[in-house]
Amino acid sequence: MTDATDTAAALDELRAELATANHILVSQGVLDAFGHVSVRHPGRADRFLLARNMAPASVTAADILEFDLDGNAVHANGPKPYLERFIHGEVLRSRADAMAVVHSHSPAVIPFSVVRGVPLRAVSHMGSFLGSDTPIFEIRDTAGDASDLLIRDNALGRALAGSLGRKPAVLMRGHGVTVVGATLREAVFRAVYTEFNARIQADALRLGPVTALTDGEASASAATNASQIDRAWNGWREQAAKR
Amino acid sequence: MTDATDTAAALDELRAELATANHILVSQGVLDAFGHVSVRHPGRADRFLLARNMAPASVTAADILEFDLDGNAVHANGPKPYLERFIHGEVLRSRADAMAVVHSHSPAVIPFSVVRGVPLRAVSHMGSFLGSDTPIFEIRDTAGDASDLLIRDNALGRALAGSLGRKPAVLMRGHGVTVVGATLREAVFRAVYTEFNARIQADALRLGPVTALTDGEASASAATNASQIDRAWNGWREQAAKR
Amino acid sequence: MTDATDTAAALDELRAELATANHILVSQGVLDAFGHVSVRHPGRADRFLLARNMAPASVTAADILEFDLDGNAVHANGPKPYLERFIHGEVLRSRADAMAVVHSHSPAVIPFSVVRGVPLRAVSHMGSFLGSDTPIFEIRDTAGDASDLLIRDNALGRALAGSLGRKPAVLMRGHGVTVVGATLREAVFRAVYTEFNARIQADALRLGPVTALTDGEASASAATNASQIDRAWNGWREQAAKR
Amino acid sequence: MTDATDTAAALDELRAELATANHILVSQGVLDAFGHVSVRHPGRADRFLLARNMAPASVTAADILEFDLDGNAVHANGPKPYLERFIHGEVLRSRADAMAVVHSHSPAVIPFSVVRGVPLRAVSHMGSFLGSDTPIFEIRDTAGDASDLLIRDNALGRALAGSLGRKPAVLMRGHGVTVVGATLREAVFRAVYTEFNARIQADALRLGPVTALTDGEASASAATNASQIDRAWNGWREQAAKR
Repeated sequence: MTDATDTAAALDELRAELATANHILVSQGVLDAFGHVSVRHPGRADRFLLARNMAPASVTAADILEFDLDGNAVHANGPKPYLERFIHGEVLRSRADAMAVVHSHSPAVIPFSVVRGVPLRAVSHMGSFLGSDTPIFEIRDTAGDASDLLIRDNALGRALAGSLGRKPAVLMRGHGVTVVGATLREAVFRAVYTEFNARIQADALRLGPVTALTDGEASASAATNASQIDRAWNGWREQAAKR
Repeated sequence: MTDATDTAAALDELRAELATANHILVSQGVLDAFGHVSVRHPGRADRFLLARNMAPASVTAADILEFDLDGNAVHANGPKPYLERFIHGEVLRSRADAMAVVHSHSPAVIPFSVVRGVPLRAVSHMGSFLGSDTPIFEIRDTAGDASDLLIRDNALGRALAGSLGRKPAVLMRGHGVTVVGATLREAVFRAVYTEFNARIQADALRLGPVTALTDGEASASAATNASQIDRAWNGWREQAAKR
Repeated sequence: MTDATDTAAALDELRAELATANHILVSQGVLDAFGHVSVRHPGRADRFLLARNMAPASVTAADILEFDLDGNAVHANGPKPYLERFIHGEVLRSRADAMAVVHSHSPAVIPFSVVRGVPLRAVSHMGSFLGSDTPIFEIRDTAGDASDLLIRDNALGRALAGSLGRKPAVLMRGHGVTVVGATLREAVFRAVYTEFNARIQADALRLGPVTALTDGEASASAATNASQIDRAWNGWREQAAKR
Repeated sequence: MTDATDTAAALDELRAELATANHILVSQGVLDAFGHVSVRHPGRADRFLLARNMAPASVTAADILEFDLDGNAVHANGPKPYLERFIHGEVLRSRADAMAVVHSHSPAVIPFSVVRGVPLRAVSHMGSFLGSDTPIFEIRDTAGDASDLLIRDNALGRALAGSLGRKPAVLMRGHGVTVVGATLREAVFRAVYTEFNARIQADALRLGPVTALTDGEASASAATNASQIDRAWNGWREQAAKR
């Protein structure tokens, strides 16, 4: 088999995996009709794969498009892309360590984006990757106070990537959250457990002062969990297929 | 094809679309056994389509009746209509810009109808159409303090339409919410995201003071979202069909 | 057809309806593996029908037993009955107007049973039958402070019926709720909307002071809703059948 | 039939039952992609059965492994085991009365693990087995403040078993909960109702001061409920099979 057919086969597999990622994220309550998940091109670090503009529950491998990091579709005259593809391009550009990005309107997470002084942080070991704080991207700082809150160009994408920094997740005020992973499965895993940790943290705060994970606990736990991602992926894939 | 058959075909299609709207609203948790959704007649602005008195989950195109704006059934001796059809007739009469109306007992929304001083407003960009305030219709002001809370005649319908004004939604104290849209799909979209925004807002208020969208953000975001309605509709339709 | 075959046919139909009531109450989140629903015998006011001791989701017409109001099985050597059948017998004895009883561990309702000073009351018109207050049965007043909280004999059943009085529902501290209806469908309807109203009321109380229905509103709304029960029943039956 | 074939048949049955326990716990919202449930070997009190490292929803009888109480797999070169099998071994070692153990990240329970001064306790008779307090295992006391929070060796398992003492459940700070039962079905029953009671308790605390069960009520109710476990198991098994 030539290198070219190798790459083609890897791409085919990755498109199918990306379709599954969409279905898992819907099934787990992270995505609804909106939000999207991307993965870096396996052969070209300056490209990424992302579904065409459609509801995630219905995405198939045939709906996956290829983009450069500026958010331009590689193949001209293709179907309509997501308006916010710049999230994916700019985050992947600024984070060589990241291979995948999930952007969602995760319902338990958004409340933490609109309240100051209550940082979303690791209170459950499943959310340990969040560490002691999750940055909030305030789009007003870049786009003024009359934007549509969307990451609709590269400048906004770069600003968002700036807020994200080296963190696994960045909240977007009044909008949602963007999560990265070293693999597609890790990004999905983190997106699911960001929602889980947010719900636990909000519920715990109503009971009283909360003991969060220490930095040492968060790092150690995150390292351990990283080895368990396939277990979750396989289980979630089966659940998603039943729906 | 004559104009008459054109209209007949358009009507058939719209009845099927209205049945789908019912199923989506149940599937998305906006309607339960109660609530209803109407659409203005495509050929006659003084008429609207609405299911007969039945649970929304079971509505088919054959269950759709035609009414004038006074809430009179166009075809005599038909099946029993919804008691509150006057919501639809009077709101459509007062709002030439509206083509569809959803009335629901949306569970996260009702709490905002019974508490004063905590206006339901856009805190999430998906709820941006709500703007900075959602009016509350207090039926006691029209019907006194011993009514059954229902919009059971044209006078109450007009009073409700008066509270709604030019807004996309009006809360009904102790009862529910009525939402309008420039299309059937927009009304459904807004009904789903009114519930979503209410849940986010209530959860955020428990964490601390909430940063809501500015008026400029709300307008800009609402304009953008209006172009994404088909994405949501298509995804929801598939989900509803699986149930 | 003789009277005897008439009654037999009516009984068969009622057993099937009672099985459906069980499935609806599970599907609507009122019953889980526990709780039960009874209906008075159509031909004999001093008897009632109730499933044998089993999870409600699995009840079929063949699982329905017949009891006298003392809670004795009419047919000897039958399968094991529910321990708390005395709820049904004594409530039906004390309430000639009631034809059916639902006892559940309805999750949004139980919190109101363990907190004093926050009466469960009609804040939504769907819960209007609750009126301005729901009594709480404190079993310690009858059984002392070391009981198993269950209505395990006729004396406790009578005490519960005493707390219920002429109301549609009585909370049972730390245990659940018992609801009556003039028909089986009304009892099911009220059980579903007791849960609904409790959730709305708790959520509203977290936002601020709540405007409840006036007594006049509650009566008028309850009277209207009583005519809409079949709509809900038919929709719920279809939903339950799909699970 | 010889004793050996007797034991083999009993083991086969128990493996199937353990697979069902996994499915019930997922279906009831106690386990997600993580957590596990074990049962003591029917013929050897120093061994236990536990699935290989995989998502609980997918476990079949063929995935069940056998371990000694030190957490060593009895059959060499088998598939990868759960990292936290030491929970099961050490708890079963310290509790001769326990035949089964559930470890979960039960979402309504975790908040009680990270807040001091609000003990998880019986407020609902279905949670009566919890009594007046649930101990919290603080792993920092054993492993210092930079652990990954997991029970990854026998020493940590022993420390957890020490916190559990003679109780039915022990919370694990920032992690989850471990529950024991005199039978597999009782452990499953308790895991489901620990989640249920936690949700009720948290919701009730938001309404006002809560009346919990007395010690006498808790003991009496727990004794009664122990006789109703098969009812729940049979209902839950049917529900889990439908998913």
